[in-house]
Amino acid sequence: MEGAYSFLRRLFFPISIIILLFFTVLNLPYPPSSPADLSSSSDTGGCTTNSAWCFSSKNRFHSTKKQLVLDHPTESSKRSRHINAVPRHPLDPLTISEFNKVKAIIQSHELFQNTQYALHTVALEEPEKQSVLKWKKGDPLPSRKASVVARAKGDSHVLTVDLDSGSVAVVETGHHSGYPTMTVEDMTSATWAPLSNADFNRTIIDRGVDLADLACLPISLGWFGKTEEKRRLIKVQCYSSKDTANFYMRPIEGLTVLLDLDTKEVVEIVDKGKNIPIPKAANTDYRFAAQNSHQNLLNPISIEQPKGPSFTVEDDHLVKWANWEFHLKPDARAGVIVSRVKVKDPLTGSMRNVMYKGFSSELFVPYMDPTDAWYFKTYMDAGEYGFGLQAMPLDPLNDCPRNAYYMDGVFPAADGTPYVRSNMVCVFESYAGDIGWRHSESPITGLPIREVRPKVTLMVRMAASVANYDYIVDWEFQTDGLIRVKVGLSGILMVKGTSYVNLNQVNAQENLFGTLLSENVIGVIHDHYITFYLDMDIDGSNNSFVNVNIQRAYNSPDVSPRRSYLKAVRNVAKTEKDAQIKLKLYDPSEFHVINPSKRTRVGNPVGYKVVPAGTAASLLDLDDPPQRRGAFTNNQIWVTPYNRTEQWAGGLFVYQSKGEDTLATWSDRNRPIENKDIVLWYTLGFHHVPCQEDFPIMPTVSSSFDLKPVNFFESNPILNIPPNAEKDLPICNAAASA
Amino acid sequence: MEGAYSFLRRLFFPISIIILLFFTVLNLPYPPSSPADLSSSSDTGGCTTNSAWCFSSKNRFHSTKKQLVLDHPTESSKRSRHINAVPRHPLDPLTISEFNKVKAIIQSHELFQNTQYALHTVALEEPEKQSVLKWKKGDPLPSRKASVVARAKGDSHVLTVDLDSGSVAVVETGHHSGYPTMTVEDMTSATWAPLSNADFNRTIIDRGVDLADLACLPISLGWFGKTEEKRRLIKVQCYSSKDTANFYMRPIEGLTVLLDLDTKEVVEIVDKGKNIPIPKAANTDYRFAAQNSHQNLLNPISIEQPKGPSFTVEDDHLVKWANWEFHLKPDARAGVIVSRVKVKDPLTGSMRNVMYKGFSSELFVPYMDPTDAWYFKTYMDAGEYGFGLQAMPLDPLNDCPRNAYYMDGVFPAADGTPYVRSNMVCVFESYAGDIGWRHSESPITGLPIREVRPKVTLMVRMAASVANYDYIVDWEFQTDGLIRVKVGLSGILMVKGTSYVNLNQVNAQENLFGTLLSENVIGVIHDHYITFYLDMDIDGSNNSFVNVNIQRAYNSPDVSPRRSYLKAVRNVAKTEKDAQIKLKLYDPSEFHVINPSKRTRVGNPVGYKVVPAGTAASLLDLDDPPQRRGAFTNNQIWVTPYNRTEQWAGGLFVYQSKGEDTLATWSDRNRPIENKDIVLWYTLGFHHVPCQEDFPIMPTVSSSFDLKPVNFFESNPILNIPPNAEKDLPICNAAASA
Repeated sequence: MEGAYSFLRRLFFPISIIILLFFTVLNLPYPPSSPADLSSSSDTGGCTTNSAWCFSSKNRFHSTKKQLVLDHPTESSKRSRHINAVPRHPLDPLTISEFNKVKAIIQSHELFQNTQYALHTVALEEPEKQSVLKWKKGDPLPSRKASVVARAKGDSHVLTVDLDSGSVAVVETGHHSGYPTMTVEDMTSATWAPLSNADFNRTIIDRGVDLADLACLPISLGWFGKTEEKRRLIKVQCYSSKDTANFYMRPIEGLTVLLDLDTKEVVEIVDKGKNIPIPKAANTDYRFAAQNSHQNLLNPISIEQPKGPSFTVEDDHLVKWANWEFHLKPDARAGVIVSRVKVKDPLTGSMRNVMYKGFSSELFVPYMDPTDAWYFKTYMDAGEYGFGLQAMPLDPLNDCPRNAYYMDGVFPAADGTPYVRSNMVCVFESYAGDIGWRHSESPITGLPIREVRPKVTLMVRMAASVANYDYIVDWEFQTDGLIRVKVGLSGILMVKGTSYVNLNQVNAQENLFGTLLSENVIGVIHDHYITFYLDMDIDGSNNSFVNVNIQRAYNSPDVSPRRSYLKAVRNVAKTEKDAQIKLKLYDPSEFHVINPSKRTRVGNPVGYKVVPAGTAASLLDLDDPPQRRGAFTNNQIWVTPYNRTEQWAGGLFVYQSKGEDTLATWSDRNRPIENKDIVLWYTLGFHHVPCQEDFPIMPTVSSSFDLKPVNFFESNPILNIPPNAEKDLPICNAAASA
Repeated sequence: MEGAYSFLRRLFFPISIIILLFFTVLNLPYPPSSPADLSSSSDTGGCTTNSAWCFSSKNRFHSTKKQLVLDHPTESSKRSRHINAVPRHPLDPLTISEFNKVKAIIQSHELFQNTQYALHTVALEEPEKQSVLKWKKGDPLPSRKASVVARAKGDSHVLTVDLDSGSVAVVETGHHSGYPTMTVEDMTSATWAPLSNADFNRTIIDRGVDLADLACLPISLGWFGKTEEKRRLIKVQCYSSKDTANFYMRPIEGLTVLLDLDTKEVVEIVDKGKNIPIPKAANTDYRFAAQNSHQNLLNPISIEQPKGPSFTVEDDHLVKWANWEFHLKPDARAGVIVSRVKVKDPLTGSMRNVMYKGFSSELFVPYMDPTDAWYFKTYMDAGEYGFGLQAMPLDPLNDCPRNAYYMDGVFPAADGTPYVRSNMVCVFESYAGDIGWRHSESPITGLPIREVRPKVTLMVRMAASVANYDYIVDWEFQTDGLIRVKVGLSGILMVKGTSYVNLNQVNAQENLFGTLLSENVIGVIHDHYITFYLDMDIDGSNNSFVNVNIQRAYNSPDVSPRRSYLKAVRNVAKTEKDAQIKLKLYDPSEFHVINPSKRTRVGNPVGYKVVPAGTAASLLDLDDPPQRRGAFTNNQIWVTPYNRTEQWAGGLFVYQSKGEDTLATWSDRNRPIENKDIVLWYTLGFHHVPCQEDFPIMPTVSSSFDLKPVNFFESNPILNIPPNAEKDLPICNAAASA
C-alpha cells in the first residue's frame, strides 16, 4: 500500500517544483512544455516516429513514467499507420499530415502573426451532405477542408481551411458571449496556475495540506451574470492526494480560486471551508494494488470467437457487420460519431439508409448545492471539456472483451500539432446469453415446436473520463434492425467536505445537499443529461416525425360489454413546436420518424421509432441561469430541420455562454419539419442521489434509448438466421497459467 | 418446405379423427387419455421409470412423435433422480413421492368419493415464515404440507394436506366468484370439445377450413356480468394450420365458441366473420427448416468458462454464486420462485438477508379491440393458465448459453399424478463485455490510472409460452448487490383477420384496432402488465418504505446567484395508502425499503431501492370490468403488510373473478406498514402497438426493474475483485466441425 502512495507523492512533488520554477521566471499564457516547443518538425509532419509523446497527450504533459499505461504491443505498427494515413472516405477524420498542413497554414495566416494563439478545434469540415450521399467507393474524395476554431488577442475565430488550395475562409470572428471548448493546455495549466500565487499557497498550507500533495481541478463556471462577462474565466478547486490515488475524496472544501484562463491571473481566492476537515484517506483508494485483500469470486469467463469476429473495419473507419454498415470516427468534442448508418433489407439485399449521423452532442450536469463553492457546478462536458479529448485509452479485456477492435483518435494540441489517442474506441461483438426471438408451443397445442435464436450484437464503445466521472457511451447494433444507445456512469463522485462524521450530528432541518457517504464526506445530489444528435434518414433524407398517441377510447355498449380500450392516433408534426416533446406517463405516445414517400407492401409508411428510457427531466427553474444554458434539456425529444450549423445542442461556444444559441432557441423558430430532412434529438436523463455504495468509486449505472424499426422491414428480418448448434461452438481449455 | 407442412398435417389429422371418435361414444368431462387412465401405479408412485410421458405433460396428451423435442442426454439419470428425490430445505417443492401421497390421500377423502374431481393446484404449503427463518442446514425439516385446490361437484375446495399425518384440513370450500387456475386437461379438452358439435363442424367447413387443419385455442373470458355468472366458461377460437406451423397467423376471424368448461357443452357459437378471408399461409412459418434460404451472418460466438461455472446448486435448489445465495424452485402458477435471497457483506463476511421471497404474481394482458370476438381478451396468464405450467423446456445453447444448469419442474396432472417438466429453468453466468466499474484519470491530471472491472452476472431464466406469446423471465444477480428482474416478450402475436390487404383500402376514419401487418392480418394493440411479489427483508423482517422525493427548492440570492436546485425529502409510509405509488415523471422519487433499526457506520438506514422501468400504466377506465379485475395495475408500486394469504395480485380464484380479491382491495384496507414485515409489489408495463417486424414472430422486447442496494453496504462491495488478465482467459479452438 505504502508503495503505491509514495509513487504518487514522488510524481506530484517534482511536477509542482518544476511548475513553480517556471512561473517564477516566465509569465506565459501557455506552459513552456507546449508541444510546439517539444516537437521537431519532420517529414512525418511534426510527429516523429521515435517520439513517445506523439502517441498520447498525457505523455506530453507529464513524466515519462506514465508511458507504460499506454503502451500497447502494436504501438510501433500503429505509429507508422497513423503517419502514413490518407483519407479514403469523405467523412474520414483529418490525418496526421492534414493536421500538420492546417498547423502550417494557420501559422502563416495574418490573424495569427506576432501574437499568441491557440487552436481550440481542428476537425474535418464535413462535405455537404448531398455530396457525401452521392459519393461511392472509388470516386475521388470531395475536397478536404478543416474547420478551425482559434483564439488570438481575445477573439474567437471560426475558419475553414481548404487543404487542397491552402486558402482560409473566415466564417465568424470577433466577440461571442461564450468561448470555445477549452484546450487540454487550458485545463492543465489552470491546475498549476494558482501555485504562482503566494496567497493561494499560504491558504493551502493553512488548511494543513503540503503543496507536494496538492491536486487541483479546473472547473467550468457556467454563466451567472456580470462576473462572468467579457473574460474567459475558470474556477479551480483543490484536493489532498496524500496517501491515496483517489484525491477526489479528500476535498479542501470551500476553497475556490477564480482564474483568468487567458492570462492565468488569479482573480479571487475564497476560502469558506476553514472549519471543515479534509476527509481521511482511509478506504478511498480503489486500485487493485491498494486493496488489503483480494476476492476471486469467479472462474474465468470470456466471450470467445475462435474463428474471429464477424465484423470488418474497411479503410480504418467503415464498419461492416452482419446486416449493418456504418462509418465510425473519434471526435474531440462529441467523442464518437457514427455516420452513413445502413442496414440490409433481407428481401432485396440492398443497403437501406437509417441514419446519416449520430453522436452525443452535449451533456448537462448540474449539481444541487447552491452554496458558494458549489452553485456554479453545472458542467457541459462536451462543449466545455471535449468529450472525446477526455476519452482515454480503453483497457483491453476489461473495458472491452477479447476480439475487440480498437480505434485510435488523432487530435490537435493547442498549437495544432497532432497526437494520437490510442485505443480510444472499441468495436466488439457481444453475446450475453440473451434471446433474439423464440417460440415454444405450449402444452395446450402440444405441437413439437421449439425455435430459439440467440441474440448477438455489435457494440461500439468509448469511455470519457471528465476528471472524476467516467461516461461509458455504447452504440449497440442488433441484427433485428434496432440501435440501442446506452450511457453508463461510473468513476468517482464529486464530493463535499463536511464536519459531520455521523448523521446523528445533523439537525433534522438541515439540508446536506446530499448523502453522508463516509466520515466528513457528502455525495452531492446531481443530474446527468446527455443529448444525442440523430440525423435520421429513413430510406432517404426527406422524413416526417409522427406522434402516435395512445389514447383511451370508449366503446358503445351495443358492441360489447367492454367499456374502454386504447387506440393509436397518428399526428404528423408540421413544425418544430409540434415536436417539442415532454414525455407523459399517462398520455403515452410512440415517436416515429417515417419516410412519407415510401410504404411497405401493405401500405404502412416505413419508419423507425425512438423508444425513450432514462427519462429523468431537469426540474430546475426555466429562468435559472444554468437551465437557460441547458435549455436543450427542457424537452426529452426535439426535431429540427437539418442545418449544418446546428450540431451542438448547447451552442458552438458553450463555455460561459448565456444560452442564446441552444437547441431550444433554434427550435423556437418553429420551422417546417414535415417531409423535410430532419434531425431528431433525444436526451437521456439521470437523477443521482448518491449512496454509500458509490464510495469510493461507483458501480456502473446505465440507461439507454432505442432506435427501433417500425414497419421499416416487411417482416421480422432475422427469420433465416440459424440457431446455435453444439458442433459450431468452440472447444476451450483453461489458460496456460491454470 | 412441403415436407414440414405435411408433417404437421399428418399430425393434426389422426388426432382430430381420434377425438371425434371418442366424442361419438363417450361423453366424459375429462378426455379419455387422462393420465389417471394411462399411468400404472408402481412403487415409484405412479411414475414408472420407463414411461416417457412421466417426463413431460406434452407427451401425455399427444403422439409419441413429439418426444424427440424433449429428449435430453441426461434424461434417464434425471428420471431416477426425480423418483428418489427427498426434500432437503423447508421450501423445497413437493417431490414425486409427495405428490403421489397427496394423490392417494385426496382419492380417499370424503369430498371426492363417488364423483369426478380435478386437482387444480397441488404445491408445497410453505411453513410459517418464522420457522423457515429459524431453520438451519442439518435441522429437521418443518412438517411437510401440501396446499391443494380441488374442484368437485361444482365447488372449489382449498385444502391443506399434512404429508406426515395424512390429515386433510379444509381451509375454504363452496362457491367463489372466481375459479381456480385451469388444469392443462381443461385447456386441451376445450380445444377438442367443439368438434363434438355438428353446428361447429359445419361452421368450420363453411369457412373453407378442413377439419383436419383445425387448430383451436382456449381463451379465458374474464368477467363482464351475468353471462359469466355461476358456471365455469371458456371461449374457443380457431385457426387453420394448413401449410404452416404458425396457425396463429391464420385466424378464422369472428368465430367464437362459448363452452362450459365442466361439462364441455357448447353453449353458443357466434360467427361474425363470414366475409373475412383466412389469411394466407405464405411467409408465416418461422421455423428454420421452413425457410427458403439461410443466412449465416456471424461466426460462432460463445460464453466460455473452461474451469466451469462459478456457481453451485446444493441439494437441487440452493444456488450459491459469488456473494449471493438463494433458494430457487419452479412453480406451476408463478413460474419461478426465488426465496431466502442473501448477499455477503464484504466487511463481516456474513450473509445478509435481502428478500424472503420473489416471484411474478400475476399478469394482465388486455387487448384493445372492443368488438365481439375480441373484447374479452384480457388475460391473466398466471392465475388463469399457470405461468409455470406453460413454461416449456428451454433450448440449450439458444435459450441459455453453454455451461447453464437446468432445473426441472414437477407438477401434478388433474388427477394428482406428477409429471416432470424437463429443463424448465436455467441458471447461468452472463458476461456481455460490460463494465462493473471503471476509472481512468483524464489528461487533466495525467495520473497513470486506469482501473476497470468486467461485469459478470448470474441469470435465472424461464420462458413461458402462454399459447402464442412467449414471456422470458430473468432474475439477474450482480456482484454489486443489484438484482435485476427482466421480462422479455417474444413469440407470436394474437392477430385479427380482416378483408383489407392494403391500408389504401381503409377509410381514414376507420379504427383497425391495430396495425395491418400483412395481407388480411391485423396485429391488435394490447398491453402487458407483470406484477411481481417482492417480500423484502432487509437485514430482518421489520422494514419501512420510504419515498425519497426529489423536489425543486429555491435559493436565497444572498447565498449565490444560483436560483434553484433539487433536494431529497424523505417520507416514511405509515400505512398502505401512503405506498400506493403512481410514478410521476416531473415529481420524481426514489423508493427505498429500509431497516429502520439498522444503520451504517455514518448513520444511514440500510436499504434497497426499487428502480422503476417499464413504467407503462394501464389507461383503461377504472370501472371497466377488465380493469376492476386487473386493479393491481392501478399503481406501479404498492406495499402491503406480510400476509400468507396475499400472494396472488389478482386473487387466488382469478378465473372469471370480478376483482373483489385483488392487491388493490387488500391495500385499500390501509393497514400500518411502518417498521413491519412488508411486501413490495412492482408492475412492469408495456404498451404494444404491433409493427410488421413482429410478423410472423416477434424479436424480443424487454423491460426490467432493479432492486439496488442503497446504503446497504458501507461502501462499494466489489473493490477487491481482480480485473481480467490475459493469462487467466481460456484458449479456444474452432469446433471439430470447422
